[in-house]
Amino acid sequence: MTQNIRCAVIGASGYTGVELAALIARHPQMSLGGVYVSEASLDANKPLSQLHGRFLGLLDTPLTPLSEEAFAAIGTSHDVVFLATEHQVSTQLAPKLLAQGLVVMDLSGGFRFADADIYPQYYGFDHAEPELLKKAVYGLAEWNAESIKTANLVAVPGCYPTATLSALKPLKEAGLLDTQQYPVVNAVSGVTGAGRKASMVNSFCEVSLHPYGILGHRHQPEIGTHLGQDVIFTPHLGNFPRGIVSTVTVKLASDVTQAQVTEAYQNAYAGSKCVRLYDEMAGQSPSIKNVVGTSHCDLGWKVDETSGHAVLVAAIDNLLKGAAGQAIQCANLRFGLIDFPLEAAS
Amino acid sequence: MTQNIRCAVIGASGYTGVELAALIARHPQMSLGGVYVSEASLDANKPLSQLHGRFLGLLDTPLTPLSEEAFAAIGTSHDVVFLATEHQVSTQLAPKLLAQGLVVMDLSGGFRFADADIYPQYYGFDHAEPELLKKAVYGLAEWNAESIKTANLVAVPGCYPTATLSALKPLKEAGLLDTQQYPVVNAVSGVTGAGRKASMVNSFCEVSLHPYGILGHRHQPEIGTHLGQDVIFTPHLGNFPRGIVSTVTVKLASDVTQAQVTEAYQNAYAGSKCVRLYDEMAGQSPSIKNVVGTSHCDLGWKVDETSGHAVLVAAIDNLLKGAAGQAIQCANLRFGLIDFPLEAAS
Amino acid sequence: MTQNIRCAVIGASGYTGVELAALIARHPQMSLGGVYVSEASLDANKPLSQLHGRFLGLLDTPLTPLSEEAFAAIGTSHDVVFLATEHQVSTQLAPKLLAQGLVVMDLSGGFRFADADIYPQYYGFDHAEPELLKKAVYGLAEWNAESIKTANLVAVPGCYPTATLSALKPLKEAGLLDTQQYPVVNAVSGVTGAGRKASMVNSFCEVSLHPYGILGHRHQPEIGTHLGQDVIFTPHLGNFPRGIVSTVTVKLASDVTQAQVTEAYQNAYAGSKCVRLYDEMAGQSPSIKNVVGTSHCDLGWKVDETSGHAVLVAAIDNLLKGAAGQAIQCANLRFGLIDFPLEAAS
Amino acid sequence: MTQNIRCAVIGASGYTGVELAALIARHPQMSLGGVYVSEASLDANKPLSQLHGRFLGLLDTPLTPLSEEAFAAIGTSHDVVFLATEHQVSTQLAPKLLAQGLVVMDLSGGFRFADADIYPQYYGFDHAEPELLKKAVYGLAEWNAESIKTANLVAVPGCYPTATLSALKPLKEAGLLDTQQYPVVNAVSGVTGAGRKASMVNSFCEVSLHPYGILGHRHQPEIGTHLGQDVIFTPHLGNFPRGIVSTVTVKLASDVTQAQVTEAYQNAYAGSKCVRLYDEMAGQSPSIKNVVGTSHCDLGWKVDETSGHAVLVAAIDNLLKGAAGQAIQCANLRFGLIDFPLEAAS
Repeated sequence: MTQNIRCAVIGASGYTGVELAALIARHPQMSLGGVYVSEASLDANKPLSQLHGRFLGLLDTPLTPLSEEAFAAIGTSHDVVFLATEHQVSTQLAPKLLAQGLVVMDLSGGFRFADADIYPQYYGFDHAEPELLKKAVYGLAEWNAESIKTANLVAVPGCYPTATLSALKPLKEAGLLDTQQYPVVNAVSGVTGAGRKASMVNSFCEVSLHPYGILGHRHQPEIGTHLGQDVIFTPHLGNFPRGIVSTVTVKLASDVTQAQVTEAYQNAYAGSKCVRLYDEMAGQSPSIKNVVGTSHCDLGWKVDETSGHAVLVAAIDNLLKGAAGQAIQCANLRFGLIDFPLEAAS
Repeated sequence: MTQNIRCAVIGASGYTGVELAALIARHPQMSLGGVYVSEASLDANKPLSQLHGRFLGLLDTPLTPLSEEAFAAIGTSHDVVFLATEHQVSTQLAPKLLAQGLVVMDLSGGFRFADADIYPQYYGFDHAEPELLKKAVYGLAEWNAESIKTANLVAVPGCYPTATLSALKPLKEAGLLDTQQYPVVNAVSGVTGAGRKASMVNSFCEVSLHPYGILGHRHQPEIGTHLGQDVIFTPHLGNFPRGIVSTVTVKLASDVTQAQVTEAYQNAYAGSKCVRLYDEMAGQSPSIKNVVGTSHCDLGWKVDETSGHAVLVAAIDNLLKGAAGQAIQCANLRFGLIDFPLEAAS
Repeated sequence: MTQNIRCAVIGASGYTGVELAALIARHPQMSLGGVYVSEASLDANKPLSQLHGRFLGLLDTPLTPLSEEAFAAIGTSHDVVFLATEHQVSTQLAPKLLAQGLVVMDLSGGFRFADADIYPQYYGFDHAEPELLKKAVYGLAEWNAESIKTANLVAVPGCYPTATLSALKPLKEAGLLDTQQYPVVNAVSGVTGAGRKASMVNSFCEVSLHPYGILGHRHQPEIGTHLGQDVIFTPHLGNFPRGIVSTVTVKLASDVTQAQVTEAYQNAYAGSKCVRLYDEMAGQSPSIKNVVGTSHCDLGWKVDETSGHAVLVAAIDNLLKGAAGQAIQCANLRFGLIDFPLEAAS
Repeated sequence: MTQNIRCAVIGASGYTGVELAALIARHPQMSLGGVYVSEASLDANKPLSQLHGRFLGLLDTPLTPLSEEAFAAIGTSHDVVFLATEHQVSTQLAPKLLAQGLVVMDLSGGFRFADADIYPQYYGFDHAEPELLKKAVYGLAEWNAESIKTANLVAVPGCYPTATLSALKPLKEAGLLDTQQYPVVNAVSGVTGAGRKASMVNSFCEVSLHPYGILGHRHQPEIGTHLGQDVIFTPHLGNFPRGIVSTVTVKLASDVTQAQVTEAYQNAYAGSKCVRLYDEMAGQSPSIKNVVGTSHCDLGWKVDETSGHAVLVAAIDNLLKGAAGQAIQCANLRFGLIDFPLEAAS
């Protein structure tokens, strides 16, 4: 228990950043060092708790402007850096932080694909570090634990992919999916998924359930790549602050039974403290309210043996299991820390 | 304009019932006659506005208990009866009302299937009027207008089927769907969809986005029957009072283009005041906030020609286009009344 | 019924502006002419329905940039202009519009005080038209109807003052208030009250019930001035899009009874189609859901004869009776039009 | 740290009960023993996590039916019992539990008044234990800490009184209130305040901001009694699940300054980990979102020296500082345990 992993957070002013800070501050084997924002940020030098009032008295640390000097000195007083920065910014910072001997947990999309070609199309920039892309480990904690334990650069998955892959991978790995038909993923996310910023789209009076990014969202190739099979993914904005429900409809391989599907989930997640299983969803199904404020991933499934389809349901808190919580989970693996707790920050 | 169709509502205490009463009361060619509840109802003899405070001063009509005498006399003072009753109750009342010479608009599921065999499995009762089932016209107003004009018994569609069929039928009728793969329908409904009643499930503190009725909801065969192709349908409860968004993912027939899909929608809904089209959903997509309080059905679509899939989106107010508004639309057709307005009741 | 009052709206892109446009478009005795935004607005030339999707197909009028030429020509084709502009802008536009022979309904605070001294302190600018201030009529429709009928400049009241004054004035006018103690006004408003703009404060994830503008809100002197007695007014932001509940606690004059208070309300609002009375609030009280989407003002009251206090409750839709609906009500009075309807815009 | 206080919860199925169970389960110096419901409860023998899905895997303890045998045996295996029961039930159970040698933390209103006469009027029953009333200590933790340390029966305050008294007592104790005018308390509570039960009033589609219990709510005398001065208290139902904001308007004694008020708060709460102060509320005020899921009580104040009034604002989570959290705080005092943490249960 006596480890003390010194942690920095870059991009700490947003919703994910403050969750990271809070989880670190409460972690019995971690300590919170620097919390940084860009020098140009209007939030520079403000206490974190001024931006996020619920942490008043708990996280009064001021946000350090990330000057060149500050950046160059991170390695002298930290073991790991969490990047809650824009995608391209992460690709620029990560190699320099690795060069300082730091472990990097990147929560952006900057290192989630081994193939650099995806970046111009889906992220709008050419990736400057194609070699590093190949070294980064995709931090889906329940599936890549062994690789994460030795990784110096972890690409923490997106919120939608975490929920969706957690539901799909047990079937895929067990060979239970029809490989000719695309799994259809419909997911609804809370508004924090859009980040902390003033915009008409996120305005209280404008938010209303609707789909967006149809047939072109960057999480569609992320899911397909890490599943090993293309999917159709349609995200929706929901009228709640946090949480994701992902509902996945799949065509099963021939003659797959409910029992086989159940066995695949039980095998995949035996012993996991993070994943909770709702076999057949009798009585209740995964839902937003059961996971918000926690790092749980709740999974349910049901099979229609007649038509050969299954519906899979995953629920997570987009800011925790979908971002900060999973990043801490990866750091726990990397440094050999406690497996849990991964509770809410507040 | 001088028509005066005399209307009764049975089952008027619920959310759909009061919307019917309000639409009738404001209709320039209709007049509101009796509003009935069952004799056993605790709401009997209460003014409608006591149950639904926003109609204070506007709908102070007391709810008449539906005694045998009251029921027998409906035909003497009304032209049409709207049934907002339980499914089996509708199947019992409809033939008697028809025998009184009334036109019947049934908002329950009691007459939505020509095949009586569906009832024991999906509705839990044996249908007592299989012959009448064959005479009932399915009241999807944009698609069955000619039949509705002469129908004495209209089965007004369910809320989810209205949204979903409005999105799917243009493609189906134009032969643009792959007939081997199931369309995948994911829809989210506001809580009024569960009716006006005290229950833990509808309790303010318990409502949270989650799927329900997975692979067994009675609207799945309703959609499949009236589309002419089986679908996988997963409804979700959303944390808002009213509205439905239905997102449909389909595999298209070979080589279907975005232009063909667009043409199919434009042909299907040319001249409709009810349906609004969001071609390709650039800028915005159908959403709850755009339709709540109206009888509009908003439709959007987008095609991925590479993979041969399309995503279709429909939004309606479940109580209006999904129930009361469509029932009035059917009555307008049946009696040759104005095409519109079909606005909100308040 | 055959009047046709030609109406323009300046500042039409916001929540109040579009409600005005919609009420005018549906008014049987009005027609909607120009809808204007400032030349610098990013919304210039966009259809109203692009900003407010629920009006798609209903209000597709593009927003005209208010050039000098456009402004100078308003009088040639309109009878009345509704100003949904910033306070100081209204004070600049109103005299020029009056000079064009137009009737002006100003929804800003620019003409709500006869005393120009209030402006530097509460509005942050010196009022350039102190003489005009004295000619403006305060458009609290139920109380100033006779003056409104002949006014060329109506200062439509603020949302909080409309609710609060509607509750307080019957007691004040009847001499039932203790004049030594300040009435205490606590009110909660939906987020549309803050206007249509991108800001962190209005961001979906940041909105949460809390007071603001404590002891310094500009509606405090507005209420005091038009009541004739100072009050303590504390507004709160609520987590809903529209509606206001104002709860007012007063010390009554000696020996005032519940019966006297009830009589004061009944006398004040006899015959009003807009105000609805909830005597003693047995069973239900005024609430947001009963008034949203309508121009009603719902009023309730209860007296504690032992302690000599009363609690008064008012509920309105802040965008309708609290803004656009009351402006139309004033225009109806001014031009001798129908008294009602004043329904929701959608 | 090595204490192990064995805790039982009676009435554990509700929102407060499960928060108690969760706080106890996570408390480093407590252990969770029996969780009980009445024998007649439909929830008997169900796991707590079946009723409250977010505790799946965390609180799977089944609810024990409270038979006579079970009740008689509580004392053999517990040190303290938390009563989250109906008011009159608490008055019946408490003396028997005390007789078993247990410490009793009663979260009902059963022991909050020394004067038994209040019960018939405000609670609808005659109190059977007037002597015990006099021995109970009112568990407002920041104000009665010394008495709580030796109390065997603690009457944990109501949610509204906790927020309101926390705001008012510093001024009252410092002699800063005008004693002739009633403080005016307006508060808004989340829907969990009404308990976990199916009812139309709590139905998702019916909840809407409005006042209730006007001039007759039982928390009005509770506040008055423990403040030592009568108040006018108007509670409101808000459209959110949990949290209370209480806004209090007071007339100050002559010539009281903002500085004196600030000093009174700082003196009263120096060293408190639970209370957080927002001096003058510049920038932000206490709000629901800052306290939900925590046991904090956030307090702000502002003085208008000209008119001699002050507005005080308190925000708490009604289920934590307003119920379960404060009960644990009292137990911590009683048994000499850690002062904090008092975080959210999840």
